[in-house]
Amino acid sequence: MSENIYVGVDLGGTAIKVGICNSEGHLLHTFEGPTGTSDGVDTVIDNIAKYVRQIVAESPYEWDQLVGVGAGVAGFTNIREGIIVLAPNIGFRDVPIRAILEDRLNKPVKIDNDANVAALGEAWSGAGRGIENCVCYTLGTGVGGGIIINGKIYQGFSGLAGELGHISVVPDLEAIQCGCGKKGCLETVSSATGIIRMANDAVARGDRTSLSTVEKIAAKEVFDAAKEGDEVAIRIVNRAAYYIGKSMAAVAAVLNPEVFIVGGGVSKAGEFLFEEIRRVYAQFTPEPLQKDVKIVAAQLGNDAGIVGAAGLLLRS
Amino acid sequence: MSENIYVGVDLGGTAIKVGICNSEGHLLHTFEGPTGTSDGVDTVIDNIAKYVRQIVAESPYEWDQLVGVGAGVAGFTNIREGIIVLAPNIGFRDVPIRAILEDRLNKPVKIDNDANVAALGEAWSGAGRGIENCVCYTLGTGVGGGIIINGKIYQGFSGLAGELGHISVVPDLEAIQCGCGKKGCLETVSSATGIIRMANDAVARGDRTSLSTVEKIAAKEVFDAAKEGDEVAIRIVNRAAYYIGKSMAAVAAVLNPEVFIVGGGVSKAGEFLFEEIRRVYAQFTPEPLQKDVKIVAAQLGNDAGIVGAAGLLLRS
Repeated sequence: MSENIYVGVDLGGTAIKVGICNSEGHLLHTFEGPTGTSDGVDTVIDNIAKYVRQIVAESPYEWDQLVGVGAGVAGFTNIREGIIVLAPNIGFRDVPIRAILEDRLNKPVKIDNDANVAALGEAWSGAGRGIENCVCYTLGTGVGGGIIINGKIYQGFSGLAGELGHISVVPDLEAIQCGCGKKGCLETVSSATGIIRMANDAVARGDRTSLSTVEKIAAKEVFDAAKEGDEVAIRIVNRAAYYIGKSMAAVAAVLNPEVFIVGGGVSKAGEFLFEEIRRVYAQFTPEPLQKDVKIVAAQLGNDAGIVGAAGLLLRS
Repeated sequence: MSENIYVGVDLGGTAIKVGICNSEGHLLHTFEGPTGTSDGVDTVIDNIAKYVRQIVAESPYEWDQLVGVGAGVAGFTNIREGIIVLAPNIGFRDVPIRAILEDRLNKPVKIDNDANVAALGEAWSGAGRGIENCVCYTLGTGVGGGIIINGKIYQGFSGLAGELGHISVVPDLEAIQCGCGKKGCLETVSSATGIIRMANDAVARGDRTSLSTVEKIAAKEVFDAAKEGDEVAIRIVNRAAYYIGKSMAAVAAVLNPEVFIVGGGVSKAGEFLFEEIRRVYAQFTPEPLQKDVKIVAAQLGNDAGIVGAAGLLLRS
């Protein structure tokens, strides 16, 4: 009996990661090679096709067992047409990548953006395994999100569902400008960027904190300081957690998901971040919407993108 | 050729409204009779069955053309099992109404709560006709909601999706207690109850307003005063609109619906309510999520419940 396999591609600015999954979403093999962004779009596409052929050739599986290829990319994608509309970190603009890769590989290809693909990865074989409806937060440089409904990525009217970083949650008087042009977005306080900004502000205004001795503050330093009891750092992490919890309360009233999955670099802050998120979620969410609903850490780490991309063939 | 018909039942505390729809959601006939709540559960169920048989008998359609019966009820429903868990205004608790009615009528029966059913009615043949993904607000005594995804009511994990009245939107310092036990819910400011409370508060503290001469303020008086330029009334209506618009911005970032439909008594305030909702929505929603998204008034009025109930047979 020959098992079906699925290849997922995580298309990043410096590296292309590819992986083989089986139909249960288990990641069987991975491979990573340079993107070749500086050599232009054609080279990047050549590299994707090459790495896909290579990982299958070097695996115990036959090319015939490959059902198709999914790719996740940071940027705007037109999923229906299979076009990368704009992906600044790989220099793609209006590239009909699906058609090109299908032609090269002679296999079905699907694409989606990185946040959706990571959400699908977690839902398929990570923290959301077996769950039909979940909402994933990715707390990184920005705050991304993905909505999984009936096991599939929910796109919305114009493919923008799950823009959780742009839920406006900070009260007007405390709201600062977001990259999206609006004020008070979750991303302004709960992303790594937001946490670093709050830390730099605290140091600049002379708050007493161990962070004032750090030359270039990263989010990790803020978490470490908070874990060591630094009150300023604790206040900053709690503020980030507060607005995540508050935004989840809003999401719960709209979608009533079974599980919230939180991944990305900021989620590495660990249990004390999650405790505060859960406390605030409970504070703002009516009891029936809390019952049996879980807020959990993502499980796949950096592999979520590859697994979810492979899952596009089965779950979109 | 014999056309299929669907009967919808709007099960209220004083009246049961029934209607016949065709498969396009056009309401062809309606009938209304007393609920008989004071005579107990059995009588209420007898009445439903009687009115359904009666409206079909008095119509030009045959019983054989009836595909099934849907019912909407204000209260908690277990949709999967077809049970009315708790509906205080008709005195139902744990009534397996689907099984009972299917037995009496020998037709498939489906049930759902009133907010979901009204949303489906508007989506099927009202303001959302032809739209796959929309979100409906019902601004009445409370604030209800319904989420339509791919043309169907979205229930969520425990059947509580679309509890839009319990999105926490009022900043903590201004937040008051909601009936759900939490603070700052949309319902506390944007329901008729919230508007009346704000008006009574304004009168009690001596604000200069024509409302101070009204003996018992209803929401309509506040709208009328606002239309006549009463500044206190305008402030109250704008506050109600502000939080609806702000909650819609959050919903948009999560679900990216094509249309927001606003119905219920408060929506009768008309265009100046909608203008403020749209202004605030634009203020807090990133441009791409605004593009081609509409915020419109419901079209079916009180018939939304009957039409949506009939639609349960096709759209759930």
